Amino acid sequence: MEKLNVEKIREDFPILNQEVNNNPLAYLDSAATTQKPLSVIRAMEKYNRSSNANIHRGAYTLSIKATEEYDKAREKVRDFINSPSTSSIIFTKNTTEAINLVAFSYGLDNIGEGDEIVVLITEHHSNILPWQMLVQRNKAILKFVYLNEEGLVDMNDYKEKVTDKTKLIATGHISNALGTINPVKEIIEYGHEKGAIVLIDGAQAVPHMKVDIQELDPDFYVFSGHKMLGPMGIGILYGRKEILESMSPFLSGGDMIEYVEEQSSTYGELPYKFEAGTQNVEAAVGLKSAIEYLEDIGLENIKKHEMKLTQYALERMKEIPYVTIYGPENIKNRSSVISFNIDDVHPHDVATILDSYGVAVRAGHHCAQPLMKHLGINATCRASFYLYNTIEEVDQFIESLKNVRKWLGYGS
Amino acid sequence: MEKLNVEKIREDFPILNQEVNNNPLAYLDSAATTQKPLSVIRAMEKYNRSSNANIHRGAYTLSIKATEEYDKAREKVRDFINSPSTSSIIFTKNTTEAINLVAFSYGLDNIGEGDEIVVLITEHHSNILPWQMLVQRNKAILKFVYLNEEGLVDMNDYKEKVTDKTKLIATGHISNALGTINPVKEIIEYGHEKGAIVLIDGAQAVPHMKVDIQELDPDFYVFSGHKMLGPMGIGILYGRKEILESMSPFLSGGDMIEYVEEQSSTYGELPYKFEAGTQNVEAAVGLKSAIEYLEDIGLENIKKHEMKLTQYALERMKEIPYVTIYGPENIKNRSSVISFNIDDVHPHDVATILDSYGVAVRAGHHCAQPLMKHLGINATCRASFYLYNTIEEVDQFIESLKNVRKWLGYGS
Repeated sequence: MEKLNVEKIREDFPILNQEVNNNPLAYLDSAATTQKPLSVIRAMEKYNRSSNANIHRGAYTLSIKATEEYDKAREKVRDFINSPSTSSIIFTKNTTEAINLVAFSYGLDNIGEGDEIVVLITEHHSNILPWQMLVQRNKAILKFVYLNEEGLVDMNDYKEKVTDKTKLIATGHISNALGTINPVKEIIEYGHEKGAIVLIDGAQAVPHMKVDIQELDPDFYVFSGHKMLGPMGIGILYGRKEILESMSPFLSGGDMIEYVEEQSSTYGELPYKFEAGTQNVEAAVGLKSAIEYLEDIGLENIKKHEMKLTQYALERMKEIPYVTIYGPENIKNRSSVISFNIDDVHPHDVATILDSYGVAVRAGHHCAQPLMKHLGINATCRASFYLYNTIEEVDQFIESLKNVRKWLGYGS
Repeated sequence: MEKLNVEKIREDFPILNQEVNNNPLAYLDSAATTQKPLSVIRAMEKYNRSSNANIHRGAYTLSIKATEEYDKAREKVRDFINSPSTSSIIFTKNTTEAINLVAFSYGLDNIGEGDEIVVLITEHHSNILPWQMLVQRNKAILKFVYLNEEGLVDMNDYKEKVTDKTKLIATGHISNALGTINPVKEIIEYGHEKGAIVLIDGAQAVPHMKVDIQELDPDFYVFSGHKMLGPMGIGILYGRKEILESMSPFLSGGDMIEYVEEQSSTYGELPYKFEAGTQNVEAAVGLKSAIEYLEDIGLENIKKHEMKLTQYALERMKEIPYVTIYGPENIKNRSSVISFNIDDVHPHDVATILDSYGVAVRAGHHCAQPLMKHLGINATCRASFYLYNTIEEVDQFIESLKNVRKWLGYGS
């Protein structure tokens, strides 16, 4: 396997080649959204210039071509995560819709009064709110698992929280706020032992590491196109076929039906049962191209490159006395996300000052307010790296960091 | 106002300039999805090459630019339909999601046992199924309004079906299956007199005629980007502000919250309360560009051009004895959709044979099975015209139609 050539990769990302506030852009926010290589932009443009049509219901050439492209995208996703079947791959608009689909469709029908749902304190709001709304509607119970002293999920707490009342466990594969890699295989196995259904939010994992559905064996696994070099507007729900088959539809309308009468309807087969209305074919085409790009570089190479940047950044950040780094100590438990604060400076001010040096990091609660409260803070700054970031960008980030307190009149 | 120059317009749509089965493509399926002008394709490409980022939560330049572009798209939509406020404009993934949002959020909380919902028999499945599922869940009642002898909505039947038990009325502005323009102003006024909430599905109307929300005064109005020269993956829900404010969120997750605690949350302001998760910024950028294109040509000019094509097509089709045309007799009640059948030939075969002549029409139930049953048929063929279609394409369509029965060995 060849080593990753970041200079060559950057030629494929024209957006990275720009100045921001008279400095080269250092885009360190891929955990929020990634940039698209030219191949993805061109694949969507080609679709729009040559074969755009509404799928499934057309007997003409253009519609047949568009349907084929949509089907190929689904097969590419299936293969990428090693799902046993394309019937298990549902396209949604984003990860959030995928989780809501499960909460509304599986949840409303199967999780009732006194039943328990277990989530981690590190979850993104999109993996908390749908369960909160469900337990409020159906009088069920939502329980949180906290962190141990190393900042990892406390598996003792997890095993206490999961009981025979637990109907569903929903955990992130990798925390978007801290970068913690969770032991999802163990989480899933233990959940299954206890008879619970397990949903894994893989939005931060699939872009960065090989995820093998058949090896992990979750009941649901969700992720997004726009965090893996693909377009916005497409998310993926993997679901175990037998469970999906047993579920009611969620969104209803065209294309997901078998036969509609005035007062009742029968629904289509998987995966169509869960794909109502005009599907986002151009986004599926872009997603397929994005996966091809990732496969071409190789997820192992991407992972190595990211970890080189992360390790270097962590080392250099630790040299700065007024920087606090959150998340696991041991880099083995980390992805390429670094959450941090600077003493006496609000994270939003840090991000704004970094921006003046061309460095794009995110600041805020990272849609993880319960975690922030648990950590006793309001917000952090977050830098996140991907295949197109360079050691020079890390240096630019570190040098900018060192200037933050000077800007505000503190000594260095 | 200048007359529409179709040759000039076609230069903007490269996809139309192709051969299908050795014939020039005649794309007559814009009621399913429209093609995109170069300006739309380029606007999205420019966004992806220069300012792509996740919106709202970023303190850096790229994210601020992306947020501005998203906001500008919302303002453009507001202006286009003359909504009183951008707070009333919710972006969804398609029209179907917009209707489901209302059915789940407004419906589950406000439409209970014995309450009635009234729809037209001409509705698209996306404006039937969500109500069917709602009445089944909440023990409410779904009533259908039928057609009069002219093939128009029977307003006497409508006024009988709407009673003081009616909580919600959901009707299409223009039927996708027949092209009938419904008297929505009268429908809305009468509904309001009776104290009902009125939702209008404008997916087939907004691309083809000036829709003025403040003049019509519906409670909800929904439509899609991909039927008005914009991208797939974006739909619009207009909602009356006071009603939207009173409603629970539908999809929940990031970006739609004010504050999240472990067991409860408060939600953001309109329109964000209904926009959970990463939004499809590139589609919003494309939609804005599509509206600019439509405004540049002028909806009045587009309407005139479409009606010229439709009238000509109807006249020529009526000359063919074995063609049955569905929908209103009077062209004043018609949009640019023509639903038809050929004696003794299955509509799918008609569409397949037309495709061999390069003519793209849709065949099937057009997601309107209750209407098909009401008309005593299983399916139709449907040709639909838009600003980029030509008289020559209508001729190509008519000549191909004349060949259908010959192909199958019937006499002409």
